Amino acid sequence: MRISARNSIKGTIKSITKGPVNSEVVLDIGNGVLLTSVITTHAVENLGLKEGNTAWALIKSSEVMIAVD
Amino acid sequence: MRISARNSIKGTIKSITKGPVNSEVVLDIGNGVLLTSVITTHAVENLGLKEGNTAWALIKSSEVMIAVD
Amino acid sequence: MRISARNSIKGTIKSITKGPVNSEVVLDIGNGVLLTSVITTHAVENLGLKEGNTAWALIKSSEVMIAVD
Amino acid sequence: MRISARNSIKGTIKSITKGPVNSEVVLDIGNGVLLTSVITTHAVENLGLKEGNTAWALIKSSEVMIAVD
Amino acid sequence: MRISARNSIKGTIKSITKGPVNSEVVLDIGNGVLLTSVITTHAVENLGLKEGNTAWALIKSSEVMIAVD
Amino acid sequence: MRISARNSIKGTIKSITKGPVNSEVVLDIGNGVLLTSVITTHAVENLGLKEGNTAWALIKSSEVMIAVD
Repeated sequence: MRISARNSIKGTIKSITKGPVNSEVVLDIGNGVLLTSVITTHAVENLGLKEGNTAWALIKSSEVMIAVD
Repeated sequence: MRISARNSIKGTIKSITKGPVNSEVVLDIGNGVLLTSVITTHAVENLGLKEGNTAWALIKSSEVMIAVD
Repeated sequence: MRISARNSIKGTIKSITKGPVNSEVVLDIGNGVLLTSVITTHAVENLGLKEGNTAWALIKSSEVMIAVD
Repeated sequence: MRISARNSIKGTIKSITKGPVNSEVVLDIGNGVLLTSVITTHAVENLGLKEGNTAWALIKSSEVMIAVD
Repeated sequence: MRISARNSIKGTIKSITKGPVNSEVVLDIGNGVLLTSVITTHAVENLGLKEGNTAWALIKSSEVMIAVD
Repeated sequence: MRISARNSIKGTIKSITKGPVNSEVVLDIGNGVLLTSVITTHAVENLGLKEGNTAWALIKSSEVMIAVD
């Protein structure tokens, strides 16, 4: 399957915090940069996510803002 | 100003494609990884974005999906 | 690849309207229901989308609102 | 009231999982297709949502991705 | 129709910039505050939006970030 | 830091409801209008948000829908 979302960043799952509806998944994408994702707890369970696993962050381009100094 | 969006990734602006309403800004975030952002053309102009500038991609955690092989 | 986005709806591409940055893709998902998607024109081209093709709409759960009468 | 969001899909509420802040609402939209929505628990209560009720999923076009095989 | 989106802000349409796919609609919500919305040009036409009209900005709570000094 | 998000609305924090992953922050933006934001509980803690504080709601233009009567 190929998807329209333009952004895919590879990382390692550093932590998972589960709530009753949503969970926070933190990816270490290298160079000391962490990416935080909030997805449903059902998705965490269906994908079988575990700390230490390789995973990708996927982000639709329209959700990316730009900041400058 | 500090903001709630958890994700901030530094990069260099590689290209800007302007449309009448939205523009596509591509950031090179290193290691051969490109991030595509779609923001308003007004924002591109107000921030004075130019190819070669340093910029940050900002992404709210609820907009980040996770994928696995 | 499996992704966290919970919603996947199969359809047929009914129309594609291309702009310089974004394109509108309309999917016919059956029973007379149309789904409109706005993605980058680069994504339309990279995926090789064409009218009549089978495609899926993918939607992160946090982007789905609920309405009642 | 008429709204700009292009996508409206009718269904029946199959389940509601309430958390302290967000709730997951699953709609059965027919033909065996389920749609998952995450909205605030306050919204679930203010709308009086209950399993078995008719409801619509509303989705802004810019939130719909496209996938192909 | 009642919807789950928690945020509704009344204003007057100050300007509409139409592109081939998306349009920018600027609302004056009073006290010198302007709100910018990007919706499809089809939505602008279907709703018959015109400068000077009263309209509401609707925003899902999960799309609102918080910033502090 | 200047960001591409076009919408910034000043208010006073009226309430914070914390969950294990997400929190709901309600801003009073004047004239009896409340804005609800859902952000991560980590963000609430990192920003040190407290009831009565001044804060800004930030919203990307592509997340703002328009409604008319």
